[in-house]
Amino acid sequence: MPNPTAAILIIGDEILTGRTREGNAHFLAGELVKVGIDLRQIRVISDDHATIVAAVRELSAGHDHLFTSGGIGPTHDDITADAVAEAFGAALDVREDAREILAAHYAARGTEFTPARLRMARIPDGARLIDNPVSGAPGFSLGNCHVMAGVPNIFQAMVAGLLPGLTGGQPLLSRNWMVMVPEASIADALRALAEAHPALGFGSYPFVQEGHYGTNLVVRGTDAVALEAGYAALQAAFPEGK
Amino acid sequence: MPNPTAAILIIGDEILTGRTREGNAHFLAGELVKVGIDLRQIRVISDDHATIVAAVRELSAGHDHLFTSGGIGPTHDDITADAVAEAFGAALDVREDAREILAAHYAARGTEFTPARLRMARIPDGARLIDNPVSGAPGFSLGNCHVMAGVPNIFQAMVAGLLPGLTGGQPLLSRNWMVMVPEASIADALRALAEAHPALGFGSYPFVQEGHYGTNLVVRGTDAVALEAGYAALQAAFPEGK
Repeated sequence: MPNPTAAILIIGDEILTGRTREGNAHFLAGELVKVGIDLRQIRVISDDHATIVAAVRELSAGHDHLFTSGGIGPTHDDITADAVAEAFGAALDVREDAREILAAHYAARGTEFTPARLRMARIPDGARLIDNPVSGAPGFSLGNCHVMAGVPNIFQAMVAGLLPGLTGGQPLLSRNWMVMVPEASIADALRALAEAHPALGFGSYPFVQEGHYGTNLVVRGTDAVALEAGYAALQAAFPEGK
Repeated sequence: MPNPTAAILIIGDEILTGRTREGNAHFLAGELVKVGIDLRQIRVISDDHATIVAAVRELSAGHDHLFTSGGIGPTHDDITADAVAEAFGAALDVREDAREILAAHYAARGTEFTPARLRMARIPDGARLIDNPVSGAPGFSLGNCHVMAGVPNIFQAMVAGLLPGLTGGQPLLSRNWMVMVPEASIADALRALAEAHPALGFGSYPFVQEGHYGTNLVVRGTDAVALEAGYAALQAAFPEGK
């Protein structure tokens, strides 16, 4: 059975204007590999209602899971919950379970539960809450769309709570072999390896280190035995590597 | 006249498997802001021919410019030139101008011009070359699609050569004001500011610093006078900031 597929949708003008260097997609990509969910696309879009609705519809229809990051805070530019609700045709209002979680969180800290904070209890009908152990305000899963915060430590905490409940597949395994020669020098031998091991993926990633060209050779696959055989062939083909 | 629009397409399994943290999109986003080209989307996809063809067609049709990163090196997994040529219905073969550039580059360094390296002289008919002062092998612009290398220092050098030749618009200006209060505390006042200055964009970006909640407030716009007025209003609304 093939692995489940996924897309990540990052919502925020601050990424597209170069203000913020996004890191949540990179973090989640690494976590998805471990649980055997194949990430097929990452997309970054602006804080625009129609754009978010269209992207949520397209990416949730085209993948087994869609993970979103950003736009679920208390301010006027936090419009993700509205857009996801519209994309799925779900009603959106303050939900009692989310309101109680926020009320308890603020009460425990002596923080005022303002109308702006109540906005974060607006959860679509039928959604399951995603726990936020950092700052209280929950994310939610609606259909196959998992809506999480953009603040990195909150995003990571939500992922930690969400992923164990999803059905994964075969984790993608990989091995890295570094050679201090330019990528072009290994191209023919690497192509031959790729053709000899069709169940594995072979990638090459050139770099420059202290003025010298080098290449990281990566072999990937879901079968551990096949992977080790491919890795051994890679090492034999480039014995000068490490 | 509205600013030209753009999308960035990052091509590479190494991003989707979490191996590499992508940085070219962040770099280019910052450069596009300066020249007044509005970045509307960043998309990361895998090294798959059909996926690249479809994404190039969609994103080049939907924006004034499409910038791609990755997949133009000498190895078997470098398939971007083939896919872009197919997307635009252009023939692809070794082109004499590109071959001469590579021959001169390798001759000057005493490096052998191998068949693998010749692969990097495959340029679609009708494309304009993008100079690569780092490692010789050129990128190219075909229609409104600008195809560049994934290695960061080469990507940045290609952008530096390409952007001055594109027609930009009004640079997006921004000002940042940091307040050491949670985002929810400023939500109402920020919404009022956004409504009072409809030509400007107001964003809020919460963070935690040494256990204290803070929020960066950002005002953006293309009109310098309007921006300074909005920034002054922002400072007046939150005099405790800096």
